[in-house]
Amino acid sequence: MLQIPETRKKRVVILGAGFGGLTVAKKLDQKKHQIVIIDRNNYHQFQPLFYQVAMAGLEPSSISFPLRKAFQNKKDVVIRVAEVISVDPIQKKVETSEGECTYDVLILALGATTNFYGNEQFAKHTYGLKSISEALQLRNDLFKDLESAILERDYEKRQGYVDITIVGGGATGVEVAGALAELKNYIFPKDYTELDYREVDIYLIQSGDKLLQGMSEKSSIAAEEFLTKMGVHVIKNTKVVEVVGDEVTLGTGQKIKSRKVVWAAGITCVKIAGLPEQLYTSGNRIKVNDQLQIIDNKDVYVVGDQALLQSEIFPKGHPQVAQVAIQMANQLSKNLNQSTSKPFVYKDRGSMATIGRNKALVDLPRFHFHGFFAWLVWLVVHLFALIGAKNKVFVFINWVWNYFTFDQSLRIILKADTKNQ
Amino acid sequence: MLQIPETRKKRVVILGAGFGGLTVAKKLDQKKHQIVIIDRNNYHQFQPLFYQVAMAGLEPSSISFPLRKAFQNKKDVVIRVAEVISVDPIQKKVETSEGECTYDVLILALGATTNFYGNEQFAKHTYGLKSISEALQLRNDLFKDLESAILERDYEKRQGYVDITIVGGGATGVEVAGALAELKNYIFPKDYTELDYREVDIYLIQSGDKLLQGMSEKSSIAAEEFLTKMGVHVIKNTKVVEVVGDEVTLGTGQKIKSRKVVWAAGITCVKIAGLPEQLYTSGNRIKVNDQLQIIDNKDVYVVGDQALLQSEIFPKGHPQVAQVAIQMANQLSKNLNQSTSKPFVYKDRGSMATIGRNKALVDLPRFHFHGFFAWLVWLVVHLFALIGAKNKVFVFINWVWNYFTFDQSLRIILKADTKNQ
Repeated sequence: MLQIPETRKKRVVILGAGFGGLTVAKKLDQKKHQIVIIDRNNYHQFQPLFYQVAMAGLEPSSISFPLRKAFQNKKDVVIRVAEVISVDPIQKKVETSEGECTYDVLILALGATTNFYGNEQFAKHTYGLKSISEALQLRNDLFKDLESAILERDYEKRQGYVDITIVGGGATGVEVAGALAELKNYIFPKDYTELDYREVDIYLIQSGDKLLQGMSEKSSIAAEEFLTKMGVHVIKNTKVVEVVGDEVTLGTGQKIKSRKVVWAAGITCVKIAGLPEQLYTSGNRIKVNDQLQIIDNKDVYVVGDQALLQSEIFPKGHPQVAQVAIQMANQLSKNLNQSTSKPFVYKDRGSMATIGRNKALVDLPRFHFHGFFAWLVWLVVHLFALIGAKNKVFVFINWVWNYFTFDQSLRIILKADTKNQ
Repeated sequence: MLQIPETRKKRVVILGAGFGGLTVAKKLDQKKHQIVIIDRNNYHQFQPLFYQVAMAGLEPSSISFPLRKAFQNKKDVVIRVAEVISVDPIQKKVETSEGECTYDVLILALGATTNFYGNEQFAKHTYGLKSISEALQLRNDLFKDLESAILERDYEKRQGYVDITIVGGGATGVEVAGALAELKNYIFPKDYTELDYREVDIYLIQSGDKLLQGMSEKSSIAAEEFLTKMGVHVIKNTKVVEVVGDEVTLGTGQKIKSRKVVWAAGITCVKIAGLPEQLYTSGNRIKVNDQLQIIDNKDVYVVGDQALLQSEIFPKGHPQVAQVAIQMANQLSKNLNQSTSKPFVYKDRGSMATIGRNKALVDLPRFHFHGFFAWLVWLVVHLFALIGAKNKVFVFINWVWNYFTFDQSLRIILKADTKNQ
């Protein structure tokens, strides 16, 4: 049993403690609501910086925040670390790995996961970047493979160890490629004197004809220029068709020796058992009205990546980014606190991506800029968005340190083994 | 093959990059020697602070340092991440998991591991604290069990989740007990409002009649007073005889409900295949002469925990602590650099242990003190001993932060899963 204390307050159960879920939980009036947060982890993770964890630039703890610390001494916020199994919207119950609980209001905020488009080979042989655990796994294997490369005298086999393929030219793909290129250019020549760092090839595969398709034309062009100058092989207009062992095959027939394939080619939501099938739209997003309610059920709301709200400007739904999730969560908590039903309207504050030191791209609604100033803006915005003063301090010091030393120093291959108790 | 480049220099192969091995590697003259460091990890770990990683006070990366970064751009230092399998002192070869290599001089610096005294039950059901991985494992399970405790309504079963038994009243046991008591007193009441934190019992089991047997009588007494005041149950003059499921049985017949048992009751060295059996003494330490050479073989040296050097003051060998390892390494590298054969003489600079904020014990050769000032001394000494300026900065900020906020904030349950590539 989930052992939720009984109170006289309305019980709001929030599934997922990402940007959407955490924001609702923080903004909901605790005098009126008992708030139950259910997440598989005991911490909130700051997704926009996963790639820096993978590339040894930041520690996991710097971009995560323990949920219990976020709600210390709040007796009406109940945290449960559990996997969601199913929802029963008729009996108003949620079933989890640790037992069930009832709700008065249910908020779905489970976010999205990597989309392998049903290809099990891709799912098995490539790295997703949708959790801190995945980021750490990629980091460990990156540095393990470099050790193996030193011992490998066969040229072809060695390329499998040192080369890396990134599939998907969206923000994640571009950021990983840029961070890898910096490792290659600044760290590898110093750390791996026995390797010829020029053998390290970084391939960025984009199925469309431009990078960063969600951003402006200028950003796409600038990103490609930055990456190409840094030595990344940007390959557009083709898809990855096969990943086997240490070989990647592209739609053009080109074969790349590369054991590490980072899959950043799309996201999808996870279906929840118990919800009617007709709720789901493309990418398993759940269709909601402008109050973020699902069809025919006023007690179930969806925020963030999982929600599909169509509007004139966004006929296919809003972008699946942190800003949308946070704004949805803000609007929803206001409505719940004040028993109002104001519609959600997205205020586009722009978007940005970073490639490397002094290299970022910022698209404001009416204005684009890139380079050093864009990079500073990117740093400041991300620092402020991080939860926790200590996290801000640690990330800031890390960035300043790396900036002046050209040396991310977190290159340890680390595992926490679990013991059968 | 280990693919060690051929040079005209004398090849010194160092097994283990702990305090002893790393110090030798740093001090050896690279003009005269090719230095090969073999370690199972790609980083040096700072053992004295493992317990703070386990107790969510520090991040693994803050107390580890990538070996390749320590020897950046040094072409005559070769680093190999591998497990040592055997040594062939006749053919002067080392066999590892990644292949073999020859040596001119071999330095054994593999340190020590947890001693379960051959009891497989203890080995399986208790936590060692001799690596960062083990520390992280204990941290993960500590916080996982607290989540389970909240869901457990049965009083007896809940005690199994919240209570912790620490076996061994040496420095590690005392430090873990103190750090746990601080978590219990400062963090649990705020983070786990649904739990009665007073249910959390911390047991420290010591087979002898005093804590910290290597330290002064005054330190032993002060440590016990500190711990008892902080609420730790110190149980002396008895051993743990059984650990099954969530129950620990003591020699007195007393039973403790406790799923987590930290084993800090002794260390032993790992035997290396290929070395003559008669070299080993108690705890598998290898007997050496005052030049740290093994018997009948002038090319094999031992430093640190693995070495047993008998002297008038230390008829049973020197204490297995960092200071001895570092001093041995210094003397050995001087001898090798200058082709001298000066005997090793240990300069005792004292010892210390910490229990918690404002509570540490310092034994100088002629002087004992404890309390706030001892604690400051402990902090400064450990900060200076850490490798890496950034590590120093991060550990310092962590400590200052924790001191003023009473809040170690690294309470995330984190795993890096490995993927079958």
